Amino acid sequence: MNSLRKTSLQILLAIPLFLLSALSLALAQSDPLPSWKDGAVKSAITDFVAKVTQEGGPDFVKPEERIAVFDNDGTLWSEQPIYFQAAFALDRVKAMAAQHPEWKDAEPYKSVLAGDAKGIEAAGEKGLMELVAVTHSGITTDEFAAIVADWLKTARHPRFDRPYDQLVYQPQIELLDYLRANGFKTFIVSGGGVEFMRGFAEKVYGIPPEQVVGSAGVTKFELRDGKPVLVKEPKIQFIDDGPGKPAGINNFIGRRPIFAFGNSDGDLQMLEWTAAGPGASFMGIVHHTDADREWSYDRQSHVGKLDKALDEGTAKGWTIVDMKNDWLTIYPPVK
Amino acid sequence: MNSLRKTSLQILLAIPLFLLSALSLALAQSDPLPSWKDGAVKSAITDFVAKVTQEGGPDFVKPEERIAVFDNDGTLWSEQPIYFQAAFALDRVKAMAAQHPEWKDAEPYKSVLAGDAKGIEAAGEKGLMELVAVTHSGITTDEFAAIVADWLKTARHPRFDRPYDQLVYQPQIELLDYLRANGFKTFIVSGGGVEFMRGFAEKVYGIPPEQVVGSAGVTKFELRDGKPVLVKEPKIQFIDDGPGKPAGINNFIGRRPIFAFGNSDGDLQMLEWTAAGPGASFMGIVHHTDADREWSYDRQSHVGKLDKALDEGTAKGWTIVDMKNDWLTIYPPVK
Repeated sequence: MNSLRKTSLQILLAIPLFLLSALSLALAQSDPLPSWKDGAVKSAITDFVAKVTQEGGPDFVKPEERIAVFDNDGTLWSEQPIYFQAAFALDRVKAMAAQHPEWKDAEPYKSVLAGDAKGIEAAGEKGLMELVAVTHSGITTDEFAAIVADWLKTARHPRFDRPYDQLVYQPQIELLDYLRANGFKTFIVSGGGVEFMRGFAEKVYGIPPEQVVGSAGVTKFELRDGKPVLVKEPKIQFIDDGPGKPAGINNFIGRRPIFAFGNSDGDLQMLEWTAAGPGASFMGIVHHTDADREWSYDRQSHVGKLDKALDEGTAKGWTIVDMKNDWLTIYPPVK
Repeated sequence: MNSLRKTSLQILLAIPLFLLSALSLALAQSDPLPSWKDGAVKSAITDFVAKVTQEGGPDFVKPEERIAVFDNDGTLWSEQPIYFQAAFALDRVKAMAAQHPEWKDAEPYKSVLAGDAKGIEAAGEKGLMELVAVTHSGITTDEFAAIVADWLKTARHPRFDRPYDQLVYQPQIELLDYLRANGFKTFIVSGGGVEFMRGFAEKVYGIPPEQVVGSAGVTKFELRDGKPVLVKEPKIQFIDDGPGKPAGINNFIGRRPIFAFGNSDGDLQMLEWTAAGPGASFMGIVHHTDADREWSYDRQSHVGKLDKALDEGTAKGWTIVDMKNDWLTIYPPVK
């Protein structure tokens, strides 16, 4: 080996070492959760992640068991003045009305077509679920995916005048990234329709279709002109809400989460199920306290009612996010 | 930098380079599918994987879309003389009989308790499904998992006198590993019970619980002494068989597979669904032709009937594995 060769080797070796040091320093100094205000809530998250990822520590959890579950509506994106999927369903009712003359005389369709917000509200969450089931059926799964994609491109939220999938919470996007960087597998476990959520979950949250658990209608396999299709039927197969969430987790994921985030009483059983695991666990609740930047609601709300879960979470020391104080940013910059 | 330091650096650099070369050579020379006999079937698999993983090639598929689905019974492990989960259910009927005096006079329980194989066979696949539903209920999901684990440890297959989870197909284990090494995500999509399969899928196939799709009963969330449990009810929620397989794939995975393997008419729609995708796809069928080392059966079989799918697969040029000729080994060595 001549001296010129030696020099080249030294340079080759020196560059990566230098870059590596710089990178380590940058990583150590950067905050993975910049939209979370420093304080007890943020520390509860980072302390939990530190202890379950510390190899040899008493709370260490193997990577394959680091299952994190997030509710969607009100936890990962906004849900006011009505669930965004309900807004989609209302737009669908209007688009489909010409083919359904019977809707003129039947609630909740009548109120939707009349633009009667109180009438729609009177139908309650069950009425909305029915609207969702009916407006999401009679088409193939491929057709439905195309309709959702089109709606996300064209519809705009009435208050913020931006596409619905840009009303996701920036702090939660950072949290999802942070958990994945620490070996967690992140799932959505939501009362929302599973196929609706898959229309944006990968793009906005980095959560692939196979990690989205949600409510589902029955689909029927058919051959149309020799080509197989799945037709969405107006029949509910599974409601992934309340006590349905632990059942959905059991059926779809098959492991108990160690990290769960919700925002309403519909998430209570999922949080309880997570808390009852054998090792360390983290239970988080988003408390909507920011009427200026988002909305302020809890015990009396028709959408995303947070009452029992707030009491139980407070009593049991779960992490309650005070949106107004704990989140420095709500939404990502407009794209 | 003194000369001693230089020498150390050279050694440090030299070792990894040497090891890397040796490793590359070893990898290039080793056969990832040693239990598959060289020939058209093996080439069909490796050619497909080569073309969908070739960046820039016309058939390239992004890693996140490399979804591979496998039936379980008869495709990943044996299914004779009865489905192994049925054998488990029969053992459960015997264990539970003392608490169910009414079973003495009701089929198919009566035949099970009398050891009447013909009576059990007469109950058909639906009768077995009922046995599975009933014997898998009235307990919590945790209790069920413990019972399955215990059964896998203690029960032995009557013909081969080894634990049921050692009657998995060695060629398929190699294929699963090979697909994963090429960026595929491997799933089970089976008519078997999802919680039953999770009792061994990770250990024997390397498939984690969240990638097992199967038939499922309804579970009910309850608080017992303040502790949340999921109780398995004697009510079927979803049958993941036949036309239910594409529906299950849509509901649980949310992407169309590009690679599917089955062995019976119950897999036909899953294979058709895979074949109908927009890009390159691979459809494989295990044809049980080896009465000496495993079993030989197809069109007339009560379990794992392969009739329509054999005709359609042959006509459409799907890959038909002739077990006797294409597989050099059937089962892994006894552990």
